[in-house]
Amino acid sequence: MPPLSVTVLGLGPMGRALAGAFLDAGVRTTVWNRTPGREGDLVERGAVLAGSAEEAVAAAALTVICLVNYDATDSVLRRPEVTDALKGRTVVNLSADTPERARDTGVWAAEHGIGYLDGAIMTPTPSIGTPAGVFLHSGPEPLYREHRAVLDALDGVHTHLGEDIGRAAAYDVALLDIFWTSMTGYVHALALARAEGISARELAPFAAGIGAILPPLFEEWADDVDSGSYTGEGNPLTSAVSTMSHVVHAAEAHGIDASVMRAAEALAVRAVDRGHGAEGFTRVTQIVEAS
Amino acid sequence: MPPLSVTVLGLGPMGRALAGAFLDAGVRTTVWNRTPGREGDLVERGAVLAGSAEEAVAAAALTVICLVNYDATDSVLRRPEVTDALKGRTVVNLSADTPERARDTGVWAAEHGIGYLDGAIMTPTPSIGTPAGVFLHSGPEPLYREHRAVLDALDGVHTHLGEDIGRAAAYDVALLDIFWTSMTGYVHALALARAEGISARELAPFAAGIGAILPPLFEEWADDVDSGSYTGEGNPLTSAVSTMSHVVHAAEAHGIDASVMRAAEALAVRAVDRGHGAEGFTRVTQIVEAS
Repeated sequence: MPPLSVTVLGLGPMGRALAGAFLDAGVRTTVWNRTPGREGDLVERGAVLAGSAEEAVAAAALTVICLVNYDATDSVLRRPEVTDALKGRTVVNLSADTPERARDTGVWAAEHGIGYLDGAIMTPTPSIGTPAGVFLHSGPEPLYREHRAVLDALDGVHTHLGEDIGRAAAYDVALLDIFWTSMTGYVHALALARAEGISARELAPFAAGIGAILPPLFEEWADDVDSGSYTGEGNPLTSAVSTMSHVVHAAEAHGIDASVMRAAEALAVRAVDRGHGAEGFTRVTQIVEAS
Repeated sequence: MPPLSVTVLGLGPMGRALAGAFLDAGVRTTVWNRTPGREGDLVERGAVLAGSAEEAVAAAALTVICLVNYDATDSVLRRPEVTDALKGRTVVNLSADTPERARDTGVWAAEHGIGYLDGAIMTPTPSIGTPAGVFLHSGPEPLYREHRAVLDALDGVHTHLGEDIGRAAAYDVALLDIFWTSMTGYVHALALARAEGISARELAPFAAGIGAILPPLFEEWADDVDSGSYTGEGNPLTSAVSTMSHVVHAAEAHGIDASVMRAAEALAVRAVDRGHGAEGFTRVTQIVEAS
């Protein structure tokens, strides 16, 4: 079997982590970045630094691209020289953007005879090249199987979610929705705690305790949403609203911006106003849909 | 040693769980609720049902009250007959409200010769009477020590956070801030997923994976906030803003209300506008304070 090879476009923190993991796994790795000088120690570690994006993509059957969003990947991939060089090759786009943009890129790739897989990386850079990495993929199954060996060199858990090219991005935005909303709640709670003389260090173990009860509740609430039952089981929406209003009042009493909790409270209040007060908080899923 | 005894005021789901746990632990338990008929099987299990709140609080040295908020506890405790009956006895208020209301109740109790401890229950009703229960307490340490044996009958982990009577409520609102903001993110993500043809059941294991990465990040970010360093370490605010805008666009493309993520994004954008784009998301803690 010939040695595996790959091209990595984009050498931000994540791109560098990907290239480093490929090199560590013994994959022949060619790298390129729009802004030169971002390759760090990758060349010392064995990477080939290409002089242009078209030269880079010509060096391997598979190109992995990881940039800030699809405006950025378009500006690289849709230059005619690069598009020509990609013909008959495959791109795995691990940049983050919306499902719509992923599907649009799939159409562009098909029009130019380029194999296209879309993907998302769900874990931070230190997880890359370790079993902790989580990668989501979508697109043609045979193409995924063909390049699976190279992707596996990144270690971690890879899941192929289906043929719809936008599916990885759809999971990605939904999961990032959870992540960034939660993190906004956390940094806000730290401000509220600080105003009450509680340090972040003091709150953190209890915050971690709250974090630990989320995964089982996520699982439990999923059935409630899929079945459309929205049962509260001892935790009615009215009591969620009451709690949310305590948070708003406690924050605003200290002059702390409570716009996020106010927006969340408004959704729960809307559910109560529509007669769902005795139901569970999962009813809000349907409230945001019917906005 | 005489048998332990306690009075439980408030027989909503949490009050019933508390009374049930006391009975299971062999504590003589007197119960009362504003609306009659909510005692379920507690009397069969050995509880004494009092005819009035003043009769109930006279039956034990310690009264545990758990109602929806402090407007509700005030309406019970501050009736003259009840206040008189409580003189020389102790109340543990496990209802949820703001630190301000807890401190105000502490002042009222001191004025009437009533021992007062404030507390918060951080875990749902099924955890009561099991090692999974998490209880926060604040107020005079000697009073806490005096009634510790009765509280321990509830099982679970009890933490006395300090003499400031508002401290348990302060932790409570900060932790509920995290909880309800996160849960709002989750139910919103379920709506976004559903619009993309992904069931809650399909998303849930990945959502649980996101939930699992929160506790270590909470710990890590705490030092960042206490030190005022707000370092991003490869995760600059600008990239958080980019991701948040993907969530907003993906949601709104499906007609889903994105008001919560829009409010969160606005805070992050405000941090970037003030020149903190290369720093970490923890900078938002300071942004909400300086609103």
